[in-house]
Amino acid sequence: MRQAGRSLPEYRAVREHADILRICREPELAAEVTLQPVRRLGVDAAILFSDITVPLVAMGVDIKIVPGTGPVLERPIRSMADLERIGQFEPNTHAPFVADAVRLAVAELEVPLIGFAGGPFTLASYLIEGGPSKTHTLTRKLMYCEPELWEQLLSRLADIATASLRAQVDAGAQAVQVFESWAGVLSVDSYRRFVLPAAARIFAGVADLGVPRIHFGVGTGELLELMAEAGADVVGVDWRVPLDRARARLGAQTAVQGNLDPVACLAPWEVLSEHVDAVLERGGGRGHIFNLGHGVLPETSPDMLKRIVERVHQRSSTAQTTSPTGGAD
Amino acid sequence: MRQAGRSLPEYRAVREHADILRICREPELAAEVTLQPVRRLGVDAAILFSDITVPLVAMGVDIKIVPGTGPVLERPIRSMADLERIGQFEPNTHAPFVADAVRLAVAELEVPLIGFAGGPFTLASYLIEGGPSKTHTLTRKLMYCEPELWEQLLSRLADIATASLRAQVDAGAQAVQVFESWAGVLSVDSYRRFVLPAAARIFAGVADLGVPRIHFGVGTGELLELMAEAGADVVGVDWRVPLDRARARLGAQTAVQGNLDPVACLAPWEVLSEHVDAVLERGGGRGHIFNLGHGVLPETSPDMLKRIVERVHQRSSTAQTTSPTGGAD
Repeated sequence: MRQAGRSLPEYRAVREHADILRICREPELAAEVTLQPVRRLGVDAAILFSDITVPLVAMGVDIKIVPGTGPVLERPIRSMADLERIGQFEPNTHAPFVADAVRLAVAELEVPLIGFAGGPFTLASYLIEGGPSKTHTLTRKLMYCEPELWEQLLSRLADIATASLRAQVDAGAQAVQVFESWAGVLSVDSYRRFVLPAAARIFAGVADLGVPRIHFGVGTGELLELMAEAGADVVGVDWRVPLDRARARLGAQTAVQGNLDPVACLAPWEVLSEHVDAVLERGGGRGHIFNLGHGVLPETSPDMLKRIVERVHQRSSTAQTTSPTGGAD
Repeated sequence: MRQAGRSLPEYRAVREHADILRICREPELAAEVTLQPVRRLGVDAAILFSDITVPLVAMGVDIKIVPGTGPVLERPIRSMADLERIGQFEPNTHAPFVADAVRLAVAELEVPLIGFAGGPFTLASYLIEGGPSKTHTLTRKLMYCEPELWEQLLSRLADIATASLRAQVDAGAQAVQVFESWAGVLSVDSYRRFVLPAAARIFAGVADLGVPRIHFGVGTGELLELMAEAGADVVGVDWRVPLDRARARLGAQTAVQGNLDPVACLAPWEVLSEHVDAVLERGGGRGHIFNLGHGVLPETSPDMLKRIVERVHQRSSTAQTTSPTGGAD
């Protein structure tokens, strides 16, 4: 239930006097909004309130988060010369507030905290397009036309994600998630050739920490096996792929997370509960972390989210299914 | 190579003095821009220049096509009362210019002409959202919350598509394609329950015409089997799904169409030709119509498109692969 905060009045109250990046930079605020959905919804895990662009912003890349739009750059990254702007990320120097927020949240939480980082394709897309894109055309064009520049950019972004995840785990995060949100735009061949190496670098780079590693993207039905191959213990599945089908593709060694359609949360309970039950049924109990298939829509009623959590707990009290959530934005 | 026209200077010259809907309404113009990519590229089929919203516009629904945006409605369809604005489509009364354009194009063409219609989910999304949408949230919400209204709307849209396709075949079109472009946003369960019945109604409604029926959407990897089950002889596959995987899902009775990544057409020939060869290889020859996996990007060089066609003809001269194209917009 990533972005659950957007549906909570207590989160909106915080947002009235602080934008997203300011919340990320102030540990007390970040910890507070991380805790909000856990308190209200009774979920089994929290996810740190932060943003995938935070390390880049902290290193001085001129990213702004425009409400209603998303991350926007005035000067996109499109050449070898531009690459110099993406340096080495030193969490303790550039963004000590992240670890501080993790420590504050963990001290208050009675459930595990998930740390996270942006996937290299997804961050590259924002950097190259200069903002959100429906088609990621410039990104994929650069990938096909300038494979060396592409590889260097993704390698740097993988190192940033690795350093960021390590710092969060050092500070107390008990699991990590890589949000490779937009990789689903890629063909299987393109993902394998142009993204998998960087993803594998991240997962290998945190393997020694001994925490569960989750890998998630939207519309990635064709990529599930490769996203596991990158080194993930858990693969997030959006609502498009039936979970039993996802499990068949992934095999017994990889757990799945998902995959309630966020739009179903806008329907009356008798409709929504059918969706919840179908996800649980197809998830099959063990090796399934119940979750939405994508972020919570802002117009969702917190009461419905609470009823979902209760339903999952009630139906899976013998099946060990869990339900993480939090305020990542 | 749908929307190939956008990359051609001769099409842009026509567009300087006529917008898309005017071209659709003037048979001479529509036939001319239908022929343009066939003349220049040497492809094996043409697709009528038209737009999926044409029948609705012709019936008086207040749709405008905004350049750079797409179809936009001032008054979206969101209630039973709104449904009254979607009446019965009589091709000869509401839009005789479509059949006229088909006749003019067929008289000049030495290759088959593909007629087409918008799929019910895709048209419903434009009508409900009031314009293009990245998430189709309002559409899916209405689908979940008001299934009766949804079913009536889709049933009407299916009847419109059926009438439109029949009129095009009567006028000389030798194949039909249903563009269900945005169905890939749906879960398998949702597609099966909320869209498949309307799609099946269209394909059954043109079955007696004896022409090949093609069914296409973007990001529909999980839906391929159901899109065939709707009654299609050929299922279009976007670039995300490897064609051999698509064929394995579909079985030997259904042909595939696709699936070159349109962005690959922006790469140098040595890169692009590898993509073309990979598609041909995975398509496996018989039962594969070579095509892009989505519309041609406007910035594509016509010379590259021509080289693709030559390559396909050269590599498949013994394998009976064909390559349709045209100016649908």
